[in-house]
Amino acid sequence: MKKKINAVQFGLGPIGQLCAKTIIQKHSDRINLVGAVDIHPAKVGKDLGELIGVENLGITVVDDIRSILRKNKVDLVFHTTTSFMSDVKEQLVELIKLKLNIVSSTEELFFPWFRNTQIAQEIDNLARRFKVRVLGTGVNPGFVMDVLPAVLTQVCTSVKKIRVERVVNASKRRLPLQLKIGAGLKVGEFKEKKATGKFGHIGLVESLQFLAYILNIQLDEVEEELEPIVTKRSLQTEYLTIQKGRVAGIHHTAVGYKDGKEVITLDLKMFVGDHKDYDAVYIDGEPPIKMKILNGVFGDTATVASLINSAYLIFNARPGLLTMADIGLPHGYLKI
Amino acid sequence: MKKKINAVQFGLGPIGQLCAKTIIQKHSDRINLVGAVDIHPAKVGKDLGELIGVENLGITVVDDIRSILRKNKVDLVFHTTTSFMSDVKEQLVELIKLKLNIVSSTEELFFPWFRNTQIAQEIDNLARRFKVRVLGTGVNPGFVMDVLPAVLTQVCTSVKKIRVERVVNASKRRLPLQLKIGAGLKVGEFKEKKATGKFGHIGLVESLQFLAYILNIQLDEVEEELEPIVTKRSLQTEYLTIQKGRVAGIHHTAVGYKDGKEVITLDLKMFVGDHKDYDAVYIDGEPPIKMKILNGVFGDTATVASLINSAYLIFNARPGLLTMADIGLPHGYLKI
Repeated sequence: MKKKINAVQFGLGPIGQLCAKTIIQKHSDRINLVGAVDIHPAKVGKDLGELIGVENLGITVVDDIRSILRKNKVDLVFHTTTSFMSDVKEQLVELIKLKLNIVSSTEELFFPWFRNTQIAQEIDNLARRFKVRVLGTGVNPGFVMDVLPAVLTQVCTSVKKIRVERVVNASKRRLPLQLKIGAGLKVGEFKEKKATGKFGHIGLVESLQFLAYILNIQLDEVEEELEPIVTKRSLQTEYLTIQKGRVAGIHHTAVGYKDGKEVITLDLKMFVGDHKDYDAVYIDGEPPIKMKILNGVFGDTATVASLINSAYLIFNARPGLLTMADIGLPHGYLKI
Repeated sequence: MKKKINAVQFGLGPIGQLCAKTIIQKHSDRINLVGAVDIHPAKVGKDLGELIGVENLGITVVDDIRSILRKNKVDLVFHTTTSFMSDVKEQLVELIKLKLNIVSSTEELFFPWFRNTQIAQEIDNLARRFKVRVLGTGVNPGFVMDVLPAVLTQVCTSVKKIRVERVVNASKRRLPLQLKIGAGLKVGEFKEKKATGKFGHIGLVESLQFLAYILNIQLDEVEEELEPIVTKRSLQTEYLTIQKGRVAGIHHTAVGYKDGKEVITLDLKMFVGDHKDYDAVYIDGEPPIKMKILNGVFGDTATVASLINSAYLIFNARPGLLTMADIGLPHGYLKI
């Protein structure tokens, strides 16, 4: 483990801001945040402290990381921009060429070897060449529907089938998340958005492929479905009014088949309503395992935790494009 | 990962027999069991298949592993003999000097760095010198009260306190386990047994010390308590009748303190009764996490699973005395 990590926050959306704030408030003993990058004109030039609601930090947000590197030795970048490999590829290439290790919340980067094989290969080659590590992680993908179920199978002599459920009540979540799941849309609008292929939860198939990879099975087929959850009564959040018959959120599933059998099922529901959050893993194995996380794992905080806790671990791993199976036993820290 | 592991089963008590049987029936595609060792005269000379209730395997149980090594190249030993470091030390030393990697169910070996520091150091030095890996694992210690809680903290930006509960109903378990927890004893007899220091569940403090180590906290103090659970009504198992007022099992706790605060609490109850098994992890952190495994994790099968699944992983680790934090992401295998 490195003594102290010099880091840059790259991307200052909600997750990036929370990540920077968490580092400053809770992890400054071992992570030294030396810079922050965002391309949004309203953010560039501001002090990071002002942006994240803490005291002035003397860190001015810049739109080009090179200006930070001229004055600081940087080990690692917390990369929190967008969800898709095709969109972040150029950012990653640039950061790798600057010899920066990367921990990223880009959902498709969690396990890009199937749906983005070519980009994954390029990133891996480049990272090896420049001797840096690149890891995609978070809470989902990154933990509840992939890493945690994988770890639970450690105590099974064999596994026949695995089912993971995540239910998130979006009522109290931030507006971008409510919009991301289509809350308030008409069913027809939902279908149009769905047709773009860039709507709903990103990373479910990546979680499935990671699980198949780590449980050592070659899936014959993967089926993904995204359906609207329609509310039967009018709903109200801090930001939205959702009329009866409109979309309250998503029901997103990914199923992996082997020899005609359903072997891995991921079932995700994120919607506005009065239901309780939970995460559950059901393993049909020896012994069988029924795990439940009551009230679920709160997404934003958990994603930031996974980014920061992984940052400590990646320096023990080989250079290249890594997965959560490459950085040792994931874990957090007791701080009293 | 090695293509195929040549292994010897060392110790043929209940766990050793189940381990051998599981390898033969479920893992023979990647583990080649080439020998079995036990010192019990009733077992030596018998075919292993007869002992574990499968077809004749052509593997004769021997009392000296050297006779197996003369005819076979062996990579790894599944070591399942006794619970205490002081008792297994000579066995481990012998196996290491024979250049054999070891995965062991010896509870104190799971994390021997605190209560058996000197033996741990000797084993570590020797294992490094002979370039083999030595790992202690199982279900408890090895998973439910240490590895799993550690992994769950991955999604916490900070952890203030952690509490782990395991409740096992011993009613349907094998007789040695019922006797191990004092079922049927008078309270006075329980106290005498307790005074020997070799009674009850072994490894609870090792789980606690592992958690403290991985969560990066130096405990100031550890308190361990072992109390009898006394039944208020007469109980009946397949093997025992337990009269009202006698011991039904154990309540075993280990608490770690830092700066006067209780930071890690492990609470284990194993007793005969009509209660349901469960495992639970409560993390006072951000976010808070309440995890429950309904009906628990069945011990014997899970211990064997942890031994076998870890055997696949240790070859990626450096030589030496390892912990479950050194072998990568623990996981099992899908076998349809």
